[in-house]
Formats: sequence, C-alpha cells, structure tokens
Amino acid sequence: MEKFEIKEMLEAVAAGTTSVEEAMLQLKKAPFEEIGIASLDHHRGLRQGASEIVYGASKTPEQIELICRTLWNAGQKSIMITRMKPEAVQLLEGTEDLPFTYYKEARMGLVGQMQTPRQPGYILVATGGTSDIPVAEEAALTAEILGNNVKRIYDVGVAGIHRLLSHTDEIMNARVIIAIAGMEGALASVIGGLADCPVIAVPTSVGYGTALGGVTALLSMLNSCASGVSVVNIDNGFGAGYQAHLINNMEG
Amino acid sequence: MEKFEIKEMLEAVAAGTTSVEEAMLQLKKAPFEEIGIASLDHHRGLRQGASEIVYGASKTPEQIELICRTLWNAGQKSIMITRMKPEAVQLLEGTEDLPFTYYKEARMGLVGQMQTPRQPGYILVATGGTSDIPVAEEAALTAEILGNNVKRIYDVGVAGIHRLLSHTDEIMNARVIIAIAGMEGALASVIGGLADCPVIAVPTSVGYGTALGGVTALLSMLNSCASGVSVVNIDNGFGAGYQAHLINNMEG
Amino acid sequence: MEKFEIKEMLEAVAAGTTSVEEAMLQLKKAPFEEIGIASLDHHRGLRQGASEIVYGASKTPEQIELICRTLWNAGQKSIMITRMKPEAVQLLEGTEDLPFTYYKEARMGLVGQMQTPRQPGYILVATGGTSDIPVAEEAALTAEILGNNVKRIYDVGVAGIHRLLSHTDEIMNARVIIAIAGMEGALASVIGGLADCPVIAVPTSVGYGTALGGVTALLSMLNSCASGVSVVNIDNGFGAGYQAHLINNMEG
Amino acid sequence: MEKFEIKEMLEAVAAGTTSVEEAMLQLKKAPFEEIGIASLDHHRGLRQGASEIVYGASKTPEQIELICRTLWNAGQKSIMITRMKPEAVQLLEGTEDLPFTYYKEARMGLVGQMQTPRQPGYILVATGGTSDIPVAEEAALTAEILGNNVKRIYDVGVAGIHRLLSHTDEIMNARVIIAIAGMEGALASVIGGLADCPVIAVPTSVGYGTALGGVTALLSMLNSCASGVSVVNIDNGFGAGYQAHLINNMEG
Amino acid sequence: MEKFEIKEMLEAVAAGTTSVEEAMLQLKKAPFEEIGIASLDHHRGLRQGASEIVYGASKTPEQIELICRTLWNAGQKSIMITRMKPEAVQLLEGTEDLPFTYYKEARMGLVGQMQTPRQPGYILVATGGTSDIPVAEEAALTAEILGNNVKRIYDVGVAGIHRLLSHTDEIMNARVIIAIAGMEGALASVIGGLADCPVIAVPTSVGYGTALGGVTALLSMLNSCASGVSVVNIDNGFGAGYQAHLINNMEG
Amino acid sequence: MEKFEIKEMLEAVAAGTTSVEEAMLQLKKAPFEEIGIASLDHHRGLRQGASEIVYGASKTPEQIELICRTLWNAGQKSIMITRMKPEAVQLLEGTEDLPFTYYKEARMGLVGQMQTPRQPGYILVATGGTSDIPVAEEAALTAEILGNNVKRIYDVGVAGIHRLLSHTDEIMNARVIIAIAGMEGALASVIGGLADCPVIAVPTSVGYGTALGGVTALLSMLNSCASGVSVVNIDNGFGAGYQAHLINNMEG
Amino acid sequence: MEKFEIKEMLEAVAAGTTSVEEAMLQLKKAPFEEIGIASLDHHRGLRQGASEIVYGASKTPEQIELICRTLWNAGQKSIMITRMKPEAVQLLEGTEDLPFTYYKEARMGLVGQMQTPRQPGYILVATGGTSDIPVAEEAALTAEILGNNVKRIYDVGVAGIHRLLSHTDEIMNARVIIAIAGMEGALASVIGGLADCPVIAVPTSVGYGTALGGVTALLSMLNSCASGVSVVNIDNGFGAGYQAHLINNMEG
Amino acid sequence: MEKFEIKEMLEAVAAGTTSVEEAMLQLKKAPFEEIGIASLDHHRGLRQGASEIVYGASKTPEQIELICRTLWNAGQKSIMITRMKPEAVQLLEGTEDLPFTYYKEARMGLVGQMQTPRQPGYILVATGGTSDIPVAEEAALTAEILGNNVKRIYDVGVAGIHRLLSHTDEIMNARVIIAIAGMEGALASVIGGLADCPVIAVPTSVGYGTALGGVTALLSMLNSCASGVSVVNIDNGFGAGYQAHLINNMEG
Repeated sequence: MEKFEIKEMLEAVAAGTTSVEEAMLQLKKAPFEEIGIASLDHHRGLRQGASEIVYGASKTPEQIELICRTLWNAGQKSIMITRMKPEAVQLLEGTEDLPFTYYKEARMGLVGQMQTPRQPGYILVATGGTSDIPVAEEAALTAEILGNNVKRIYDVGVAGIHRLLSHTDEIMNARVIIAIAGMEGALASVIGGLADCPVIAVPTSVGYGTALGGVTALLSMLNSCASGVSVVNIDNGFGAGYQAHLINNMEG
Repeated sequence: MEKFEIKEMLEAVAAGTTSVEEAMLQLKKAPFEEIGIASLDHHRGLRQGASEIVYGASKTPEQIELICRTLWNAGQKSIMITRMKPEAVQLLEGTEDLPFTYYKEARMGLVGQMQTPRQPGYILVATGGTSDIPVAEEAALTAEILGNNVKRIYDVGVAGIHRLLSHTDEIMNARVIIAIAGMEGALASVIGGLADCPVIAVPTSVGYGTALGGVTALLSMLNSCASGVSVVNIDNGFGAGYQAHLINNMEG
Repeated sequence: MEKFEIKEMLEAVAAGTTSVEEAMLQLKKAPFEEIGIASLDHHRGLRQGASEIVYGASKTPEQIELICRTLWNAGQKSIMITRMKPEAVQLLEGTEDLPFTYYKEARMGLVGQMQTPRQPGYILVATGGTSDIPVAEEAALTAEILGNNVKRIYDVGVAGIHRLLSHTDEIMNARVIIAIAGMEGALASVIGGLADCPVIAVPTSVGYGTALGGVTALLSMLNSCASGVSVVNIDNGFGAGYQAHLINNMEG
Repeated sequence: MEKFEIKEMLEAVAAGTTSVEEAMLQLKKAPFEEIGIASLDHHRGLRQGASEIVYGASKTPEQIELICRTLWNAGQKSIMITRMKPEAVQLLEGTEDLPFTYYKEARMGLVGQMQTPRQPGYILVATGGTSDIPVAEEAALTAEILGNNVKRIYDVGVAGIHRLLSHTDEIMNARVIIAIAGMEGALASVIGGLADCPVIAVPTSVGYGTALGGVTALLSMLNSCASGVSVVNIDNGFGAGYQAHLINNMEG
Repeated sequence: MEKFEIKEMLEAVAAGTTSVEEAMLQLKKAPFEEIGIASLDHHRGLRQGASEIVYGASKTPEQIELICRTLWNAGQKSIMITRMKPEAVQLLEGTEDLPFTYYKEARMGLVGQMQTPRQPGYILVATGGTSDIPVAEEAALTAEILGNNVKRIYDVGVAGIHRLLSHTDEIMNARVIIAIAGMEGALASVIGGLADCPVIAVPTSVGYGTALGGVTALLSMLNSCASGVSVVNIDNGFGAGYQAHLINNMEG
Repeated sequence: MEKFEIKEMLEAVAAGTTSVEEAMLQLKKAPFEEIGIASLDHHRGLRQGASEIVYGASKTPEQIELICRTLWNAGQKSIMITRMKPEAVQLLEGTEDLPFTYYKEARMGLVGQMQTPRQPGYILVATGGTSDIPVAEEAALTAEILGNNVKRIYDVGVAGIHRLLSHTDEIMNARVIIAIAGMEGALASVIGGLADCPVIAVPTSVGYGTALGGVTALLSMLNSCASGVSVVNIDNGFGAGYQAHLINNMEG
Repeated sequence: MEKFEIKEMLEAVAAGTTSVEEAMLQLKKAPFEEIGIASLDHHRGLRQGASEIVYGASKTPEQIELICRTLWNAGQKSIMITRMKPEAVQLLEGTEDLPFTYYKEARMGLVGQMQTPRQPGYILVATGGTSDIPVAEEAALTAEILGNNVKRIYDVGVAGIHRLLSHTDEIMNARVIIAIAGMEGALASVIGGLADCPVIAVPTSVGYGTALGGVTALLSMLNSCASGVSVVNIDNGFGAGYQAHLINNMEG
Repeated sequence: MEKFEIKEMLEAVAAGTTSVEEAMLQLKKAPFEEIGIASLDHHRGLRQGASEIVYGASKTPEQIELICRTLWNAGQKSIMITRMKPEAVQLLEGTEDLPFTYYKEARMGLVGQMQTPRQPGYILVATGGTSDIPVAEEAALTAEILGNNVKRIYDVGVAGIHRLLSHTDEIMNARVIIAIAGMEGALASVIGGLADCPVIAVPTSVGYGTALGGVTALLSMLNSCASGVSVVNIDNGFGAGYQAHLINNMEG
C-alpha cells in the first residue's frame, strides 16, 4: 500500500475527476506517518469527524506536550487529553504558546477550544450517585469538546425513584443518554425503559465489598431487561462520550 | 443436658410454679428425638411457631411419606413439603389416610391445611418477570401455609417502571415485601426505595450469558442503594417466605 | 398519575390547542393496560417507532399465540417473536388467520411483514466465524423487521486479516456496525479501528475451555482499544439489532 | 406529578376531610426538594419512621457540615452520619451550634441525640471474633440511634461452641439477631438454628488468603442450612442495623 | 537407576548384611514395572502398608477386570476399586474367579476382603446432611477396607447444633475425624473446635445457587477458625479416607 | 450444662471413684471462663496437649501482653504468639518478668520455652522456593514449640527435580510432611507420590499474574494426583504446623 | 490490493527477474479466494509449509465433504479434519473418490496421506494420566500428518515420579515436548526442568470439583517455575501439535 | 545417584571411549552442588546452551552479589539478573570487580557481556501499546543477552490495523515472534494469522476495570483463532524471551 497524496487528490476533486464522496473514502484509508514517539494521523479529524484525542494515561508529561505542540502547529484546532496526571497538567499550564484549559473533576485537558455543536438536540448524562460524577464529567466533557450539547442530571439513583421520574421529560427528549452508576447499576435499566433513544451504560467502580470494583454494576447493565442499552468498560467515561457523539451526529 | 418432660412442665405451669414465659423458653431448648431416618422434633411447631417443614430435595418418596405419616399421626395439623419430585407427588397422592394437596408451580406439597393468619396485614410478593413466578409461588405458598395473608404483583420489572409504580399503594401498605428478580435484579432497589418496611430480595437463575445463573442478580441485590434490603440464596423462595413469615408475625 | 385519554388528546391536536410534539410526548408517557397474561401497550409502536416485540423465551405457545392475535386484531402490522421454541413455531404455523413466517437460523418469527426502510444507508453485520451466524441472523433480522437495510459479511475473523480488509469499503460506508465474535472477540477492536461509525459488539458463546461460554469474548470487547465500541450481553443478537435500529434511524 | 402541599393536607386532616392514615400515605409519596448539593427530604423522618441518615463515604467535610446544619435548623432531632473520615470528624467537632458526638470504632457521628426505644425487647448483635467488632458497632449504633435496645455478645465464634451456647438464653429471647462474622462465617448458621426470630447475617472482610475479602463468609451465609437467615453486603453494618430496626418496630 | 532385585535383598537381610529397616527403605524406592495398560506396583502393599487401589473413573470395564485379575493372581488379598460405573460392576459381578463385592452408595468395589484393623481406636465420619452420605460412605469404606474401625454420625448439621452436641463423647474420643458437608460447610469448624484430634474436611457438591458446586463449602472449610483442620478436594471421600487411614495407623 | 469443678473431680480421681480417662474426658468438656478481653481456657493445655496459642493478628500490643502475663502467672510454661506486629514485639521485649523470644522470619513470639519432643521421629518441612521460607518457618516453629523434631529442606522446587530427589531418604523416613509452595504448587504432588506418610500442603501467595495471590497453588494442591495429601489456607503455616503436631503425636 | 497471479510470478522467477525468496514472500501475501461456504486458500500449503486443515467443529458433514473434495481435486495431497462428529465420519467414509482415514481416539480424519518427515529428530508427547490420551492423540496425529516423527510416553504423572524419570533420556533428546495433563498439571513443570528444548503445555479438562474443567491445570502451567514453557487452551491438542510442528521444522 | 566427574568424562571423550553426544547427554544429567544460599549449577551453560540466569525478585542484594561473584569467578561470561530492585542495582554498580550493566526499562542487569548471535535471522518483539514496552524490553533483552538478533515494533495495536500491516514484511520474515499486549490482547491473533512462524503471546497487566490485571488479555490470547500461538504468564517477558531463544536456535 503506497503513500497517499492529499494534494493530488484534492486537485482531482477540484477538477471534477474525483467525487467528494470518493475523496472522503480515500482519505479515511490514508496511512499514518510514523514520526517520533507517537503515530500522529493528521487526517483523523477528517476521517472520524472529531478533534484529535491524546490518551494521557500511559504517556510522560514531555510526550504529551510534544504531541500537543506538533498537532497545534499542524493546524489542529481542538486537542483533547484524557486521564492527565498532575505533572502533565503543570507542564501544559506552564507553556506560553499552547492555549490550555484543565478540567479537574474529569481529569481532562483541552488545547484550543471546544467545537461548536452542529446538532441542536442534546446528549443526557445521568448518574446514580454523587460518587459517579468524575466519570460523568469525563463523558460529558468528551462530548462537549467534540461539539455536542450536553445536559447533566446527577444523583438520581433508583432507590429514590421519584427523583429520577421528575426528569422524565428530559429523558424522553434526549437524543442519546449516558447512564452512569456503580453499586447495583440499576439506573441503566430504568432509564432504558423510559427512553426510546439509544442508551449507553457506564458502570463505575463506586461501592465496596461485593461491588467488586464495578463488576457488579457491569454485569447488571449487561443484563438490563430494557432494550436499546449497550455498555462500555468500567469507569470509561471517555468511551461513552465518544460513542454518544458519533450517534448524536448521525446524518438522518 | 437431660431429657425434658413436657407433662411435668405443664403441670408446673398449671400449678403456678412455672410462668408461661419460662415454660416456653424451656420448650425451645428441648432436645430432639432420634427416630429412624430423620430427626423429628415434635416441639418444633411450638418452638418456632410454625408448621413442620419437610425438605423434599434430598429425600426418597418413601422417606417423605414415612415422615409425613409419623408427623400426622403425632397430631401435626400442617406439614409442608418443599421441592417435591414427581415420584414423591405420585406416592403422596396415592395415600388414603393423608389429606395431601400439591401446588405444581411451586413444587410444594401440603399435608393437612394452611394455618389461619393471625395478622390482618399482608406480605407482598413481587416479581420482575413471568419467568420468576415459580420462585415467587414457592415464597408465597410458604407464607400462606404458615398463616399469612399474601398479595402477588407479578411481571413488574423496572424496564417498564410505570407498571411497577401503578402498584405504589400496595407497596407502601405492605408489612413485608419479597422482591424476586433475575437478570439484573434491579427490582429490589426500586422497591426498597419506595417501601418503608423490610424487603427480602430473592435473586433467580432467570437469564442467559452474563446472568451467570443468578449471580448477577444476587450481586446487584447485595449492592442495593436502598436501605432495608437483605438477600437470600438464588431461587430460595422458601427461605424468603419463611423469614417474611417471622417478620410479619412479630409481636409489637 | 391519571389515565390518559387518547381521543381527547387527538381532538386537542386537531383543534390546534395541543402541538403535535406535545402530543407525541404525552403519548410516550401514556400508561399501559393490564389485560390478561401480558401487559400490551398499543402505543408502543408510536412511542418507540418500532414493531411490537414478543419475547418468546419464557412464554408458552398458547400465550404467544394469544398475544399475537390480540395485537394483530388491534391493527399491529408487524409483530416480531424472539427465541421461539419448536412447539410455538408449530402452533403459529397452524393458524389460518395470522400471516406467520419463521426464520429458523435466528429462531425468530414474524406475524405480518417487515417494515419498509426509511433510511437508504445500511447496518453492517459482521461475524468472526461461521458458528457465530445464528446470533448474527438474530441481529440482522431484528433490524430488517424494524425497517433497516442490512449487509452481512460473515466469517471474517482477524486470524485471516486480509479477508476482513477486503471488505474495507463496506465497513467504512456503514452507518452502524454490529461486530459478532466468540473465542477471543478481537473482531470488534479491528473493525472499531477501521470504522468511524458506532460499533455494537456482541460476544458469542462459541469456543471451548477458556472461552468460558462467551465471557472471554465479552471481556475482550469491553477492553477494546478502539473508541466508539459498546457491548451487549453474550449471544444477545436481538439487543444489538434493536440498538442499531435506533441509531440508524436518528434524525439528523 | 405535581408538588405536594403539606400545609393544605394538614388542614384537610384537621378539618376531618382527610383521615390520618390517608395523610400518612400521601406524605410517603411526597416528592423531594432539590436544594443544593444533596436532595434533602424533610418528610423522611415521617415517611420511614427514622432519623435522617447522611452517608459520609462520598461527601466532603463541607458538604456533610452543610447538610447537618440544614437538617438541624429544619428541626431534625437526630442526624446520623456513616463512614466518617477524620477530616469530617474534625470539622464537625469544631462547630459550636451542632451537638455532635463521634463513635470512633463504628466510624459514625451523631448530631442531636439517640431516639428513645419504643419497644422494650432487644436486638442482639453477635460477632465471631474481635476483628469483627467495628462492623458490629456500626450495626449496633445504627439501631440504637434509631431507637432500639441492643445487646452485644462479641467473640463467640463457632470454633469454641461452648462460648456461644452459654448465651443460649439471650439468643432465644432476642427479637432480631444480627450475626456478624468473617473467615468461614459459620456463626450465622448456628445462631439461625438456635433462634426462632429473624436473623440478619453480615459477612466481614476479616481473614486472609481464601477469605477473599469477605466473599467466602458471604457465600457461606447465603447457603446457611438454617431457615430464617438473610444476608447484607460485606461489612455493611449500617444496612443490617437499619433492617433490624424496621423489624424490631413492626406493629403486632 | 537400575532395576532392584527383591530376592537378593531379602537374602542379604537373611544373612544379616542388611538390616530390616534398610531393606524396607530400599523397597520403598523400588521401581515399578510397566506391564500393559497400567503400571502395577506389586510392592505397594509393602511400601504404603495398604491394599492396592484401582481408580475406576477413567478406565474401561475390561481394563479394570484385567488389573484386578493380575493383582489377585499375584497374591494381593484386598483390591479396592473407586468410582465404578454400572458396566464395570456388571462385568466384575459376572466373573467366577474373583470374590467381588459392590457397595452401591459409595460406588466402590472390593475384590478379596477388608483388612483387619490393627488399631482399636476409631475414625469418625460425620456429615451435615443426608445428601452428603454417598461421599461419606466412600470415605468410610476406604478406611474400612484399608483396615480401620469407623463410626458414622450422619445428618448432624450445625443448624441443629443440639443434634451434633449429643455426639460430643464420640467426637472427643475419636482418633481422626472426617467432617463432610456441602452448602456452607460449617460442620468442620464446629467439630474442629470440639475435637483435639486431626480433622479432615471434605466439601461436597450438595446445594444450589451460590453453593457453586461445592466451592462455597470448600472456601468455608479452608477458612475454618478452628486449628487442626485440613481439607481435600470437593467430593473426594476416597482421599479423606486414605489420609485418615495413614494418620490412624501412625506408630506412637 | 452446669459449671465444672476441677477440685472435686480431682478428689474423685484421687478417691478412685472416677477413672483418669473419665476425668480427662470431663476436663475436655469443661467450660471456659470469661475474663476480660479474651476468653482464656486454662484447661486447654490439658485438653489439646498443647501450649497456649495467642493469635496476634487482631490484637493490640497491650492485649497481647495482658494475656501472656495472665497465662504465665497461671503457670503456663509455653505461650506461642502468631503474626506479631513490630509494636507488639517491642512491648514484649521491654517486659522484665516475661521470658520472651522473637523469631523474626516467622513473625512468631514465644514466652517461656519450647516443649521437649516426646516422639523421636521428625516432621519434614519442605519448600519450593526461597520466597516460601517465612511461611515454612511459621510451620516449623509452631511444631517445634509444641514439642516436635523438625527437619527443613528448602528451595527444592520441582523444576529442578534432582534437587528434590537427593532428599528422597529424608522424605521417606518422615512421620509427617508439610509441603509448602507458591506459583504452580507442584511440590505437594511429587512429595505426595514419594512419601507414604500424611502430607499437609500449604499454598503460598508467592508469584505474580495468574498466581492469583496463592489461589493457583491452592487449586493445584487440592487436585493433587497423589493420595494422602490435604490442604490448609493460603500462607497458613501455623495451621499446617499445628495439624502436623497432632498427627506426629498420635499414640500407636 | 489486487489479485495476485501465480503464473506470472513464476515466469518472472524463471526469467531471473524475481528471486525465489522474493517470490516466496509475495506468495505468502497472496489473497484468498472466496468460493462458496468457506474461504479456501490454495497457497496455504506453500505459505505455511503445512497440509490444509479443516476445522470440523462448526461445519456440517456436507460442508466438510465439499471442502475436502474441492481441495483434493485442486491437488492437495494431505487434508486434515479436526473434531469430527460421527455423521461427518460416516459421510466421508462413504465416498469413493476420497482416500479417507479416521482416527477415533483423536476424533481426527485424514484425506490423502501423512507427509514424510524432513527432520530426523522427534517431538515427544507426554501425558500425566490415561484420561489425557484423547488430547494427546490429537496433538500427536496433528504433528504426524504435518510430517514429524513423534514419540509418545503416556501415564507418567508426577505422583509416581520414578515412572517419569525412567524416560529421562527420551525427554533430554527430544526437539520439542508437548506436556499434557489435567488435575494439577504439574507434569509441565517437572518436564520443563528436565528438558532444554521448548515445552508446550496443554491443560486438559480431566478431573472433578476444583479441577474447574481444566482451569486449575491451565493456571498451574502458566505459573510453571521452569523456564521455556508456554501454554495453549484447555484440551487444545491440535494447537500444541501445530506449534510443535513449526518449531521442529525450524531451519538452523 | 553418584556425583559426576567432568574431568574423567572429558578424558574418556578424548580417548574415544565416549562419543561427544553421549558426553553431552551425561552432562545434562549431572547433579547440582549445594553451596550456600543457592544451588548453582556450573554445567548449566553447557546443559541449556544459555547464560546463567539469576532471578532477582526474591533475593536480597547481598545474595545477588554473592551469586554473581561466585559465577563470575567460576568463569561464567554472561550472567543475567531479572526483576532487580533499586538497592540491588546500587550494590552491583558499586562493585569494582564485576562488569555490570543495568537496563532500567526492563529492570534487568548483566554481569559480563551479551552473547554473540549464532543465527543470522531475528526474533520480532511487537507490542500493542506504549505501556507494554517494559515487558517487551524484558523479553527483547533476555533474547539479546542469550545471543539472538531482535527487531522491535512497538505501539502497533489492532485498533489502527494499518500501522501493524505496514510491518507485514518484518512479520513474515521473522523466525519467532513475541506478541505483547494488554487490554483485549487481540494483537496475538492478528499477528498469528499473518505469520507462519511460532508466535509466543505475552499478556500484560495494562488496562483498567475489566482488564482484570491482565486476565482478559490472557484469556483472549489462549482463545486466539490463529494456529501456532502459545502463551506465557501475565507480564512474563523473561519467559517469552527465553523460549523464543530456544526456538530461534533450533538446529535444522
């Protein structure tokens, strides 16, 4: 498989010898460039319609900074960094050329700015308890940075069902719902029964004893008696936010 | 520990040299008699305020029949048999001297008759789905035979929360609730949040894949975010019905 | 919550005193009717934009037939029955008034006809091996009956990666992808990396030894290193097909 | 569902147009108010016949203090705080207006005073070993704060069965028993066999190796061969104390 | 390592150039002979002071018969066969030259006769319930065939502790105890606390739900709070009987 | 059960109206005295033929010191303390009246002196690796303090089978063997095949990844293909040493 | 990636414009052809130096026959079929044109003939017990069909270590060893310590109770204290035989 | 088994009375010497064709230094130390007589020098992500020290399949491949499908939630749908490097 030349392709599109759809498709297949510590793919924003995402968990502060600067200088307008450690935050906040914002609760960073939502509807992020909020913020911010309207309803666990039901309208009008809960994870089933939009469930590691670090909530959500519910890994707020973004921006 | 003489004790009570409370306490401590295949304890009805219970699972039809006849001839008015196998049912139905009734769905048998409820209130038995009904019937019949009023609300799983909420009054007025569910077992949490009476949760082995034969529902119920919920073994309708009976007959 | 009167509401809409959106919202909240063995909700087609679904696993053939006839007589045009047992198939095939079709591999039945797709794009259903096909057919038929175009690419497991890559265009042009695999479940990760649409992964119980009845594939899929992947229960083809339908019919 | 007006209802009761029972029932259904960080429900004391409970585990010291002050100023006489961290204790002890007591072993705090027992009988709290005492104290104090007489018998594990049997009278005279044990958790079975009142078993995370952090004791208790035993989550002293309180205060 | 010549060695013993202890030690090290389907070791009776044991589980009826005949003709007086399948029983019962007895409940066979006990004391075999009896019989018969006195006390589970305590003298006078129980396996802990001889615990697969096929009883027994308890595999009555035999025949 | 009077009984023995055996038996049944923090049983040395054992894991240094002093003053000659924490060691070493020795590797303490072995034979303690030595020392010292000769062969894991086989004579001449290993725990099977005495296997938490904190070694040992092997809890050197002591001192 | 033309490439090789190594490399990359039910790859014999392998587990008898005939007619000399069901065996044995041999114990079939070994050394296949033989035969036959010399030593489990050690020379002279065992799986560790060639360990599902269907043996083998041991799935004799073949045919 | 004299044997070889092959075989069987803390086997370099390996995990710095010095003085040219702790590194770096190199990322040390590769081909070490690199370096360095050429391709996880495919030639030309991945571990399956050489898979503990500390990757790799893949313990880079070395140096 040979290297792909963006410029030639765009000229072909310009000349009418290649349709836009065809060009888009070719771009998606374009290979990556191996430059240094990480394989950056400048076409990704195009390919997945998203900002660039830097997974912070396994990278040193210096690696994160280098990647961000390279992307920023290459023209990327919105660079999201997940699971940042304090040292990485400190380093990025100390730079002068990178417009960096840190969201503490979600442990996420942003170089540049959030994208403007194209879709007027909203993604709803709901949690069972207050301890689930860090995961919820990771999900909500991921969706917001990628350009989505987000509504949050927190601490609406099923043991106080009235509290959840008082939000029935927001649940029924949402385009996508992210249901986040630890302990017994029953929130996903109840919301799944009320909503008629796709529901993404996120189990959290909140709880003790037989909560088993989130496994109980995960199992519970996988066995939801409601249709239209799918599940991501324990505490994976980013994954839920990302998939909700893809669904919310489906073209009708 | 010496053998206890009922007659002497009753005479002492009659003579006023022993109080009734003292006599009751002594009776509870009375030893069992080892007679044949099973250790029958004729004082048990007295000691635990219950009918005699014969666990059918590990006994041959002949053993069950012998025990029932011995108890019946000893004056026991109500003998409950759990987890009966078809051959045992056939044998008991073939006897002429034992007044036997079989409850198919609950796999339970009764020699004699149900006890009359002393308590006007009711135990509520609720299930998440229709597949949970055999376990629910085991619980409900156990309570009824032991002398309790029982209300049943079946198929009120949380994925259709309106269905459950339409029974809010019955939930709030119950004295004890038995919440029975398989799959994700969320019913216990929602009912636990609505009720202010003790809730006994029974996980069932209904479901497939990660339902893990009831373990998911069990874990979910143990992690219920509602207070006042305790749990028994998977599919243990009898255990739930028995404890509900004890609670329902508490003296105020 | 009081009973909702459809007729009054429709008159209000007709009179212009209630907007259509408001009416739709109220209908979604409308309560169910408890009639006989199952709680049928005639508004569901409206509420969830879907055919009526009858879960066949825990119902007797007679119950299934009664529900289907009731729905059909009430005007439902498309009634899907999941996980049918042979006796239920036999009973439904013997009726004269119900137009019944049985899909053997998927163990699904249909009374009436498939809905016409409103969306020209397609849902892609891919499997790792030939043993995964029954689950895949359950997913594909669910989506087709609910009114979606479906493309199938079967037996494209990652151990022969060229086979999967020869379908790159179909993967990149799909609107939603259902990735179905047993054993090590790696298909979801590779497809998730190639696609930029939502991917729903279905682990299957195919495999032996440490495949653990699908748990290995499930764990693998939950840990997919690709973004945009969510997971449903083991062998839950229906759940994946249903959620894919919801996503595919998002209004842009 | 509209907001409920307490005042109107009370006037209706006063006017005789609403019975007390009806009023109580309506109050139980009354919605919560969303005020600030936590949803406080001033009717709860009424609804569940209990003091207000603040779950300390997932709250900051400032949040705990704010909630306590709000409740106290609203007239709540008894506010229990569970699983307090040292910083929260320090903050509460530093306030001047809140009458705060800290119970170190149970990690519980109390603003105001314990309720007076209405029921002359007692709840028995028994442990297998000395390491189980913190969980036992959480259970015992929960019951005492809510207004119950409690007897404690600690370190009566089944490996020294005489030690347990010397308390036979206390076991037989109890109204409810909380049996707390780690390791093999056999205490619940032996007590369950001796008592004829409801037994709530609490597995603890005491032990090493195959004690599996309490899972072994939990499994053991769920499989108790004694009737009348139900189980709560590992180390959940509060849950057991709360349910014991509900049972002990049953009206006959 | 070269082949060992028994005859030469015995002559050396006879001549006084080798002591008996030395000869015994050499015999223990003697190699096996590979003859046909199984490696028979004619010195084993000598080496381990035991009858020959044939594990029936993985052998065909013909293999079992051949081994038994070979051993019998070689002079072995007592040949025990474990886990016999019906076909093997039928074949052995059909032979004329082999004195065969079958013990149905224990699924064990014996060619020849039980050895005469050398030790006047007894091994005690206790079970929690009646369902544990097949495993108990395997243990008891193993010990009896190998030449030990055995006492059985069955159905003395801890939920009826008086029943067990009425056997206190038999427990305290035993030389070795085999405690057999399923469900929560608490019998081992209580007996371990009463006895001051070695206790071998055998978990059984009796129970349902979270009994997990014997794993719960196993975990419980491994965590026994009593000293002097060790454990064998689930349902391994033979292993317990064999080790009890070794212990009972220790030379003082 | 009434209180037992030692003095009266001894007089009866002296007078010849009670035999020694009968007296011993009664002493075994004698109840404990509840004095202070722990239930000390001064007859235990008599009842179990052992030194007094103080479980250090869950006790404060002050509690340990108090118990030791009480026992020492009551005439106990040998008091063993398990799993001591540094603070407890420091406190005991600081006392002047208690003759205290600390064994660091085994984390055990001894007040008084080891008992003199009555049995000339030896217990063999073998380990698979050097990391297993702390558990082995706990086992060996337990047996030595209780009065047994002990031989140690360490680091003889099965991956270097010659190393183990060079100790064949010591294995074959042992009266009891304690086989200690982590990782795959195969040592127990190989030793079990070589020896004809009872083997007690101790799994250790040595290893990483799928060693699962000792569970792999435990499972492996429970499934040993050798007869005569039983198992204790992970890292339970004390339990193995204690049972080996009981076996080694069997009267022939 | 376009279709590859074998003929053109071979002509280029003949013309000297392509080297043989280059041609081999290209062939390995050659795509597959999608023809009918299965994707057959006629270059595979070339690409992997092996016979064609048909996985029989998930195919109908008709599919297996069709694939075999297609391959045979295309010139394949050796076609191996794994995990054959009786109906497939019957069908293949009934064909006249396909030279079919069935190996019952291994459940494997062969169309054509075994390949001639190129390497004079041998692969050693060892089992712990007789129950492991079916898995061993699958491994051994796989290697033999692919063209390897195989030696078998069966029933040499570690509980009788002399039996294994009498084969020391065969172990030390092997080029690759496949060590197959159930229960505690210790065979792999002992052989791994004796051999200095690669050892492939195969856990089997032989055993009961805590053998956990092969998981115990698997865990044990993964934790082998010997270097040079790797592991395949439970009962995966084919996988072990295949990898042993690859290793045995390494070019020096 | 008597001590083996190297010198005599070599003289016999020199005299032609012993063949070289015979001598090699005898050397392999030569016993070890027990000298001090560890059993060093000076013939091992000869026996396994490898450098001496010192497992650092369970040894004190002083033990490691002593072993290294003993080996070095005995003429060993290459001594590898695994899993070194900082204190051991410090001690070894402080010695003057030992030529010590430390490889930080792999936590490995080397006294002396790497062996010169005899085989011109290479072992390929591939990882799914950057977090897997420490395990990969342990594998790669093990192979390099033992005398092998190694190629590394890191961060080629399957979610970006193009990245992996751009290395197709290196994969196809490798003699052995070590595939290292955490999370879902799919790398092993894809590489296994591309390569026709032996693949050793190493699961790593990289990941969170349901990655279960590497168990998910392990299970996934064991269930690889590709032939020719075997697996070692979680994070066991050394084991994989060692076995790859054995395979790479097979004589053709």
